[in-house]
Amino acid sequence: MNADDIAGLRPGDRVLVVAPHPDDETIGPGGTLARLAAFGVEVHVLCVTVRRGAMYGSESDPFIREQELAKACAALGVRNQAIAWIDETGRMDISTRQRELVDLIERHEEASLAAVDPVALIIPAAGGYHQDHQAVFRAGFAAARVHPAGLKPTPRIVLGYRGVEDRWSAVDEPWWLHVDTSDYWPAKQEALRAYATQIRSAGPRSIDQIERIDAATGAAIGTRYAESFVPYRLAF
Amino acid sequence: MNADDIAGLRPGDRVLVVAPHPDDETIGPGGTLARLAAFGVEVHVLCVTVRRGAMYGSESDPFIREQELAKACAALGVRNQAIAWIDETGRMDISTRQRELVDLIERHEEASLAAVDPVALIIPAAGGYHQDHQAVFRAGFAAARVHPAGLKPTPRIVLGYRGVEDRWSAVDEPWWLHVDTSDYWPAKQEALRAYATQIRSAGPRSIDQIERIDAATGAAIGTRYAESFVPYRLAF
Amino acid sequence: MNADDIAGLRPGDRVLVVAPHPDDETIGPGGTLARLAAFGVEVHVLCVTVRRGAMYGSESDPFIREQELAKACAALGVRNQAIAWIDETGRMDISTRQRELVDLIERHEEASLAAVDPVALIIPAAGGYHQDHQAVFRAGFAAARVHPAGLKPTPRIVLGYRGVEDRWSAVDEPWWLHVDTSDYWPAKQEALRAYATQIRSAGPRSIDQIERIDAATGAAIGTRYAESFVPYRLAF
Amino acid sequence: MNADDIAGLRPGDRVLVVAPHPDDETIGPGGTLARLAAFGVEVHVLCVTVRRGAMYGSESDPFIREQELAKACAALGVRNQAIAWIDETGRMDISTRQRELVDLIERHEEASLAAVDPVALIIPAAGGYHQDHQAVFRAGFAAARVHPAGLKPTPRIVLGYRGVEDRWSAVDEPWWLHVDTSDYWPAKQEALRAYATQIRSAGPRSIDQIERIDAATGAAIGTRYAESFVPYRLAF
Amino acid sequence: MNADDIAGLRPGDRVLVVAPHPDDETIGPGGTLARLAAFGVEVHVLCVTVRRGAMYGSESDPFIREQELAKACAALGVRNQAIAWIDETGRMDISTRQRELVDLIERHEEASLAAVDPVALIIPAAGGYHQDHQAVFRAGFAAARVHPAGLKPTPRIVLGYRGVEDRWSAVDEPWWLHVDTSDYWPAKQEALRAYATQIRSAGPRSIDQIERIDAATGAAIGTRYAESFVPYRLAF
Amino acid sequence: MNADDIAGLRPGDRVLVVAPHPDDETIGPGGTLARLAAFGVEVHVLCVTVRRGAMYGSESDPFIREQELAKACAALGVRNQAIAWIDETGRMDISTRQRELVDLIERHEEASLAAVDPVALIIPAAGGYHQDHQAVFRAGFAAARVHPAGLKPTPRIVLGYRGVEDRWSAVDEPWWLHVDTSDYWPAKQEALRAYATQIRSAGPRSIDQIERIDAATGAAIGTRYAESFVPYRLAF
Repeated sequence: MNADDIAGLRPGDRVLVVAPHPDDETIGPGGTLARLAAFGVEVHVLCVTVRRGAMYGSESDPFIREQELAKACAALGVRNQAIAWIDETGRMDISTRQRELVDLIERHEEASLAAVDPVALIIPAAGGYHQDHQAVFRAGFAAARVHPAGLKPTPRIVLGYRGVEDRWSAVDEPWWLHVDTSDYWPAKQEALRAYATQIRSAGPRSIDQIERIDAATGAAIGTRYAESFVPYRLAF
Repeated sequence: MNADDIAGLRPGDRVLVVAPHPDDETIGPGGTLARLAAFGVEVHVLCVTVRRGAMYGSESDPFIREQELAKACAALGVRNQAIAWIDETGRMDISTRQRELVDLIERHEEASLAAVDPVALIIPAAGGYHQDHQAVFRAGFAAARVHPAGLKPTPRIVLGYRGVEDRWSAVDEPWWLHVDTSDYWPAKQEALRAYATQIRSAGPRSIDQIERIDAATGAAIGTRYAESFVPYRLAF
Repeated sequence: MNADDIAGLRPGDRVLVVAPHPDDETIGPGGTLARLAAFGVEVHVLCVTVRRGAMYGSESDPFIREQELAKACAALGVRNQAIAWIDETGRMDISTRQRELVDLIERHEEASLAAVDPVALIIPAAGGYHQDHQAVFRAGFAAARVHPAGLKPTPRIVLGYRGVEDRWSAVDEPWWLHVDTSDYWPAKQEALRAYATQIRSAGPRSIDQIERIDAATGAAIGTRYAESFVPYRLAF
Repeated sequence: MNADDIAGLRPGDRVLVVAPHPDDETIGPGGTLARLAAFGVEVHVLCVTVRRGAMYGSESDPFIREQELAKACAALGVRNQAIAWIDETGRMDISTRQRELVDLIERHEEASLAAVDPVALIIPAAGGYHQDHQAVFRAGFAAARVHPAGLKPTPRIVLGYRGVEDRWSAVDEPWWLHVDTSDYWPAKQEALRAYATQIRSAGPRSIDQIERIDAATGAAIGTRYAESFVPYRLAF
Repeated sequence: MNADDIAGLRPGDRVLVVAPHPDDETIGPGGTLARLAAFGVEVHVLCVTVRRGAMYGSESDPFIREQELAKACAALGVRNQAIAWIDETGRMDISTRQRELVDLIERHEEASLAAVDPVALIIPAAGGYHQDHQAVFRAGFAAARVHPAGLKPTPRIVLGYRGVEDRWSAVDEPWWLHVDTSDYWPAKQEALRAYATQIRSAGPRSIDQIERIDAATGAAIGTRYAESFVPYRLAF
Repeated sequence: MNADDIAGLRPGDRVLVVAPHPDDETIGPGGTLARLAAFGVEVHVLCVTVRRGAMYGSESDPFIREQELAKACAALGVRNQAIAWIDETGRMDISTRQRELVDLIERHEEASLAAVDPVALIIPAAGGYHQDHQAVFRAGFAAARVHPAGLKPTPRIVLGYRGVEDRWSAVDEPWWLHVDTSDYWPAKQEALRAYATQIRSAGPRSIDQIERIDAATGAAIGTRYAESFVPYRLAF
């Protein structure tokens, strides 16, 4: 159950991934991004925010977080990545900035629909439990609406990816698009390791548990590893 | 919002469409089949049954129905088509033959998973109001389960298509895969005309109403005509 | 498939429509409002907000927007209409004003549950992709809760209408109430034309695409044109 | 929260209720039928089957069951009622007769779409746990599809009613149409009492428990008693 | 249909209930809390906010509201209760404080996951129509995500309770966990009476209507009274 | 995230598991059954059918299948097991025997609701792709309806378990009840090995893939292995 390409994407096509925070682009769709990049697709990542200050019992330093992101993106073969907002106070609540978020995804200078004009937009799936993931889903979904040709870019493909603790959700969604990532687990693992301040040795944010989920997803389609997506739009 | 191929299908790939009765393969996915065939994909059609006897106030003659199917399939560019069961009494209720239906879709001599080994299986969507469509959905879905490599063919792609009166359904489904069929509406129209005994001049089985639905589906993705599908499985 | 009245509404009954922005009351339920008005039902429209400033590449001038609304409402036969909030900065995000929105729909001086005491409340359906539509749905739904007799007005009927790009939604909803608007398409078309600054010549905001959607909705119930609604409450 | 009519039905209009077995028409929508009848709407009831033989520890005698049905229908003001199939062996499984069931609802001599040409069709809701209720729902839903004008009758209104043990369901449905039956609880109670062989003194088939459910439904819309329905189609 | 304990909770176990406002903990799960307390389970209640100022045509005085809460909690046998935020202006919109809400439920000094380390967390169900209930659901759900052992407390059980006007919801949820509260209706009634400023003599906030709902819920499982919950997580 | 008991079941309580075919009771809920048995709960298994004849390319011999079942049940600690129907022709389609299936689950001599009077009934979940699993779900669900006390046994707890290829489903269900089976994976593995004719070395029916699924389920609740269930009824 394999194919050269993914959903008909071609070498040279562009993909935009929106991550609420650095590491979401790796935990959910990391193997898929690595496979796309290896196939010649240009992958761009927009991270919405990083916090400065206390987090998980340690300090979150935006400079270090940006370095981690760069390292992870290098491991995956991502072409370009950007972090949009530095939360200097540690109190930013992006779920109250819905309109700014839509603008960001539409028009960020480096990594946005306008800047990248991507064939595919990859966003957190609707059912994530985290308020930031929900806000980014809603904004990405709104930004992906169909525009008249020539006015604004409309991505032909819109996919939702899983978050950490992916089964803690009150929303059932059709996870029906599967990508065989067996050959790209090493790249995903390396990218996960790049997030020294984020990844834990046990629990939902551990490499071990992410591996178990990708292995079970693979079991569903008969491959060693896989990642699943919600296919919100596939227009051909 | 267009692409050369559909879901990554390539010239030479094979597709199996299962239709409860002749004309279902045209009314729902006809434009898509025509576009696939024009692109070089081999399209095979399995019709489950035709009835002999009174129907819609006229006679249903299996021989004429088969000729209509052949003509429609020619218009669409279908490679091969077969009708499995002739309902001589006009009283066959295929919803009570669930197991035979699964066997049929798995092993029919000419047009089945075993005979065609298709990349994509295209079946009626789950939410059709007609008991035969529901039965064929269930059987097709069961037949499409994942097998160990080498044991039985497992189609990488499974799509559900619309039936006539497509909005009379108590089941909400995600119609998220769209195919631009603007260039193939003439072929679909010709195939619809081939069904002289089935298509009406007004109402849900009229060419006028089918055109209106395909036009509205196109409006949703910014094209003149389109057909939508439920993407039950897309494995890459 | 027709009836003199809609859901039992009578001449002299009052209906309140809440539109996030001017034109939403026309794009979704315009034909139905025209039919209700022609039947003698009093239709009142509350528009939540218009923006001053750049929009879709041109300027949005609240004065012009209000004139357009008045012209459209005249075409539909609306009795009274009001715009509640002028967004002078162009940065208002009504999804962060949930409580004020509920108050507005409950108590706006001219067009609200308190001012109109309507039999039916017509709001955007839950599944719209636009954050403003979602916010207005939530607020309208909350405002429509059942109150003890005499305390606050409780509308017997609550319907959700479609937005532009109506099929770009991650939420499946039961669009089960249909209104034959065949005789009122001209009125809706005239109202749409009144929105010179909002309606486009192509794409989801074009008259052509709205017509295709209404025609397909009509195909579902055997009429030339129709509009569908989500019937959140129908109490008789 | 009241209205003279229900969903716009008028004196002289006809309604067809399909009940899997005698008493289902009373347990679910009995108060509504009584109110419709009192308003001048003609109510017709088609019961699909009664069993001869052992049932709930006593004997089921079709003759007695038919008398019970007649008595209950008289209490509700039903114009005409019929039982279609006598299950002489006590082993009939109507869920294997899907096609015959559709034919029955379309063409039964006395009480069917063809015989009654009703404005409204009232069937068991989709989510009933009982296989017979599910089969009757599916058949009624299929029979209610839209036909071209003049070919077959198409009911403008299709409602699903509750069964006994109405909350034992794995299917969530929108029970959004409510009917104030406060004035008709006595008639429903009398009709329930007519079913001496079916109604129990305790448990889900007791008058006490049915009263509690109708009272709670009333609480939801601010009336003493009410019945709720799933509004599958409301076309105006 | 009874059992000594509820979902395996034991005497000495702790439960945390989060209520948007005082009285929500009683209206929805009051009988269940009384039964848990009588069984020896420690019940803690966190109320998010009370308003100072005009409300329902009278004044809301935080001091009186706190006394009412204390009285109701005493009637139910609650061990400890706290109100987190006093809304001095009467204009607080907690749906715009999503992140603070998560922090509150995780770390409030007296009644939070950190302070109580509960086996079960009981929150409003997702489908409430009130924006505050929705906000508290989302925050409680986010706070209940699985943490690595030792880092933060993870409740094994997460239940959603009903709000007032519980059937006015656009979201279907599986209300599948039922608690027989027949012996605890008197305690719930007493707690409801403690809310002199909140409970009405008629309508959805009246004891009469709450009793009818609990009686109908009991009818569904064969008991005199019952309360139902959405079982978001049950880990054993 | 652990507890001594599961959903409050006690030593001496009885549980009835219904399996369409031998091995379903192990593949889905095997670890849970082993844990229940070790805790002193009496586990009874009713297998609906085994086929005589060709199957998966080899012969299915009912005698050998029964021996395999006995061996697997011994490994899990099951108290008693029975196979109801031998399909001598290999052509039995149990989805056409809905009523007989309900009778079987209600009244089979050895393993049924009447024979075992269980606290918990464990059946295949609704969303299985296999027609036999769907039929057994429907029949088990119908048999589990609430009866008046004393008439027929009503299980307080009804759970749905996963089937093989558990993610190949068009139905989203809330898999919200989780059982930590870390200590019982060896027993489940031994039981799986007992099915020499059914379990494969690769693919969805392989021990390797079942292990990966149980490991991923465990990851969701922070344990080494777990099994998830749909909690259709939990009455306390």
